[in-house]
Parts: sequence; structure tokens; C-alpha cells
Amino acid sequence: MLSRSALSTLSKRSLLNGRMTTPSAAASARFVHIEKRLEELGITLPPASAPKANYDICCYAQGNTMYVSGHLPLNSNGDLTTGKIGPEGESVEHGYAAARQAGLAIVSTLKAQLGDLDRVEQVVKVFGIVQSTDSFKEQHLVMNGCSDVLMEVFGKEAGYHARSAIGTNTLPLDVSVEIEAIIQYKD
Amino acid sequence: MLSRSALSTLSKRSLLNGRMTTPSAAASARFVHIEKRLEELGITLPPASAPKANYDICCYAQGNTMYVSGHLPLNSNGDLTTGKIGPEGESVEHGYAAARQAGLAIVSTLKAQLGDLDRVEQVVKVFGIVQSTDSFKEQHLVMNGCSDVLMEVFGKEAGYHARSAIGTNTLPLDVSVEIEAIIQYKD
Amino acid sequence: MLSRSALSTLSKRSLLNGRMTTPSAAASARFVHIEKRLEELGITLPPASAPKANYDICCYAQGNTMYVSGHLPLNSNGDLTTGKIGPEGESVEHGYAAARQAGLAIVSTLKAQLGDLDRVEQVVKVFGIVQSTDSFKEQHLVMNGCSDVLMEVFGKEAGYHARSAIGTNTLPLDVSVEIEAIIQYKD
Repeated sequence: MLSRSALSTLSKRSLLNGRMTTPSAAASARFVHIEKRLEELGITLPPASAPKANYDICCYAQGNTMYVSGHLPLNSNGDLTTGKIGPEGESVEHGYAAARQAGLAIVSTLKAQLGDLDRVEQVVKVFGIVQSTDSFKEQHLVMNGCSDVLMEVFGKEAGYHARSAIGTNTLPLDVSVEIEAIIQYKD
Repeated sequence: MLSRSALSTLSKRSLLNGRMTTPSAAASARFVHIEKRLEELGITLPPASAPKANYDICCYAQGNTMYVSGHLPLNSNGDLTTGKIGPEGESVEHGYAAARQAGLAIVSTLKAQLGDLDRVEQVVKVFGIVQSTDSFKEQHLVMNGCSDVLMEVFGKEAGYHARSAIGTNTLPLDVSVEIEAIIQYKD
Repeated sequence: MLSRSALSTLSKRSLLNGRMTTPSAAASARFVHIEKRLEELGITLPPASAPKANYDICCYAQGNTMYVSGHLPLNSNGDLTTGKIGPEGESVEHGYAAARQAGLAIVSTLKAQLGDLDRVEQVVKVFGIVQSTDSFKEQHLVMNGCSDVLMEVFGKEAGYHARSAIGTNTLPLDVSVEIEAIIQYKD
């Protein structure tokens, strides 16, 4: 029988786990699969993001669920990919690359938060908003940049996710895409 | 006391349950209430949606929660309802009908995933994005098309949901509305 | 070992708890910290919102999670803050104040739902959509109005949240901002 206090303890534990940004040596030794895959794929993660206001880059909730704040297309050199996608603006390829970088920015945050990317049990949900000219109608092709890289990194089991892709007329800092995520993680 | 492994087993079980698209005969025999109501209401579900890229039409998470990907207003003949809503575009009625079809597309996905619509315990959350001209300010009236049909199908207890309705300048494939959902389901 | 029926009972209990809008006298006597802080901060909550269609102002889900519907910038006198933010429209300050009011509207709903604001364990996630002119690129500065007031009200532990802020060309009733939230609460 599940007691309220059991759930409450769980929640507290999750919060504590989550806020550890330096994993124990034992944990690092146990799992190294995904870090190694990143190396093999030649992927360099962008620097981990940090919020510049009264919110967190992510929030830990019950059931080992992590809500990841909206991430921007951050490149390894710290630059953002900007511009509207559409016939009168940037190409689908530009948008695809931006969505890939926003996806990698999320991976970078997960690594900083969980210490070890093998602790990602499931990428549950991804929501992507594409800065678009009025006539652009292929936001899904742009968001494939994020879905593809999450699948490359986490593999078929853990990488599959529910997804929504929409357009909008404008985004913070003129970025081409903003992506938020929900993740389920292992202790 | 709730152990980690108990939760983990749960999660795995949910995943397995979720991916069964053909229910056992026993399950079909047990619940038939909502399928019957659909018949009485004269509702024909559109074909179940399938993602065309590296993501899933839904994702199963802890606590018997299902995240349903953004659905488009798919009609029974496979066509999508398109166009911007607003004084210079399509009518509120056009949008309402589109939101109803997107809602039914979600119901169709739930049926394909859960096997039996009586397994829907609660429509938890619906998020609807309405493709709108700049001067259109009644996205909530459009989204009533989805809320109304979910209430018709699932009834007052299971059908009630939290909701957000927003506008945007453009959506994938020029659809009039895109809707995602969070569902709680029974084993 | 956690049984299905235990989880199911939990869910039912949460639903029942949630729909009580009048707290017991005992509960009111137990916690008064946040109500007192509101008084000290000189904050008057706007009237609690109510949906005008087939959806709920919030929905209770497993794990003591509450999904709060999109809230509008409702002022104490019942008026909404309207207008697009951007160089050709309203100022960032106008938007910040609107986001603060939408945040307070969420607090007002939480008070009406939970009876006692001390039952808010964690503001998990906030999603804000800012009605913006095409050239406005500082939606994050607008959304600080919501994040700041949630931190003032709930404090550093419970107030911190994941967040996404995006722009859009149009919102229901011409409001300057719409905000939805996910909350974890205590029994």
C-alpha cells in the first residue's frame, strides 16, 4: 500500500538527486554508454544553459519527471541561431540545424543536471516553436532536427517521444526555434 | 513503502500496455460503453494518425500518463481542414469544426493505443493552437470544438480537462488548428 | 509493492481533495504563512477565474499534480490587460505588469482550489505566451513579471519553476499575455 509519506519521501529524494550536478564516482563508472556514443558521433555539446531570471533551467517533479525549460539553438561557441524560417526568410535546412542545436542544448542541460546521460530513461515529450514567416507551413520538417538528434543520442528505446511542432511570428532574441522537453530519469 | 524497482516495473508495464494496439478479447468484452456512445452520437472517427518522422504519436510515462503529440484536424476521408481563422480568413464555425476534428483525431489515436476507450480515466489537459489572422481574438471559441466533443465522447467525469487556447500566425501544412493532450488511463 | 488499486485510490482522493473549494477549519488554522506574506507584500489577488465553456480552470492528476489552464492578465477590478507588446505597440513594462497579473490570477485560482496556499509544494512549470508585434524579441523580460511574483509569493523553495516564454501574433480577447502552469501540491 502506497502511503502519502512514501510519495513525499520520493519527491524529496528526486529533488535532492536532481540538484546534484556532480555525480558520484561510482555513478560515473557504472554508465558510460551515451557519453561514448556522443564521442563516436563526433558531437560536441554546447555549454550548459543557465536561466538569467527567477526561474530554473529545469524542475524536478514526482515520478522522476524532469520539466526542461524552453531551450534556444545554442552553438558550441555560445552563439544563437537566429532568423525566421520561410520562403522570404531562412531555409528549412537553417531551421533544421537550429532545432538540432536546441536539442543538443537540452542534452547538455541533462548532462549537467543528471551527471550521466545514461540516467535518461525516456524522452517523454518535446514541444518546439519555430519562428516563421506567415507563408511557411513546414514546422514539422524543422523540428525533425531535434527529434533526429535525440534519437541519435539516446537510441530507439529512450529517445522516442511525443512531439508538437508549431509556428509563431516571433521568439525571444530572434532565435529560429525554441524547444522545451519532459524527461523521465533513473535514480 | 514504495520501492524504486516497483515504480520501474510499473513504468515498464505501462510502456508494454501502451504499445499493444490490439486489445485482448477479454478486454473488448469488458468495456463497451464509450464505443457505443460514439455509435449513438453518429460519430465516425478519422483514421488513427501516425508520425512521419523520429517521434511517436504518443508517449507513455509514469503514473499511467500518456502524452499525445500535436494532432491535426483530420477528416474521415483523410483530408485536413486548413486556412487561417479571422475576419479576413475563415469563420469561427470553420475553426470550431476543425478543432472538433482534431479532438476526434486524438480520440482515434487513443482507441488505437489503448484498444478500448473506456480505459481513458481522465482527459487531463488540452493545448490548442489556432492559426489566426492578426485581428482574430476568439481562439477560445474555436477550441470549444475540441472541448465539446471530448465531453460528448467521455462524459462529464472523465472528459473535463484543463485547457489553454492561443493563436499563431502559421501552422504545419496550413491547418486551422493543432491540438495536443495529456491523458490518464486505466490498466 | 505498489498496487494498481492503491494508485487508483490515490487519484480519486486527489480529485476529491481538489474539488473541495472550501477548506476545513482545521486546515485553515494549520497553515497561514503565505496568506500572511501576501498581506505584507500588499498584494490583492484578482477574483478567481472560472471557465466559460466545457473545460475546467484546472485538472488534478496522479502524483498530486495540478494542471492549471491558461490564465489571462486579470486585474483586481475584473479588467484584462490588453494590447501587443513591441516597438510599434505596448512597452515591456506594460507586458511585465500583465504577466504579473496573470501570475496572480493563477495564485487566486490555487487559493480557491486548494483552500490554503501553503499546500503548494512546488510551482513545477510555467508556460507564457506574449502577444507581440513581429519585431519584438524580449518575451523573456515580459514573463519575468510572472516568475518574479511567483517567487515573491511562494519563496525560493516552492516558487522556483521551469519556464518557457514565446511570442505570438494574437491571443484570445486581445490579452497581452496568457500563462498556464503545472503545480505539485500537498494533501
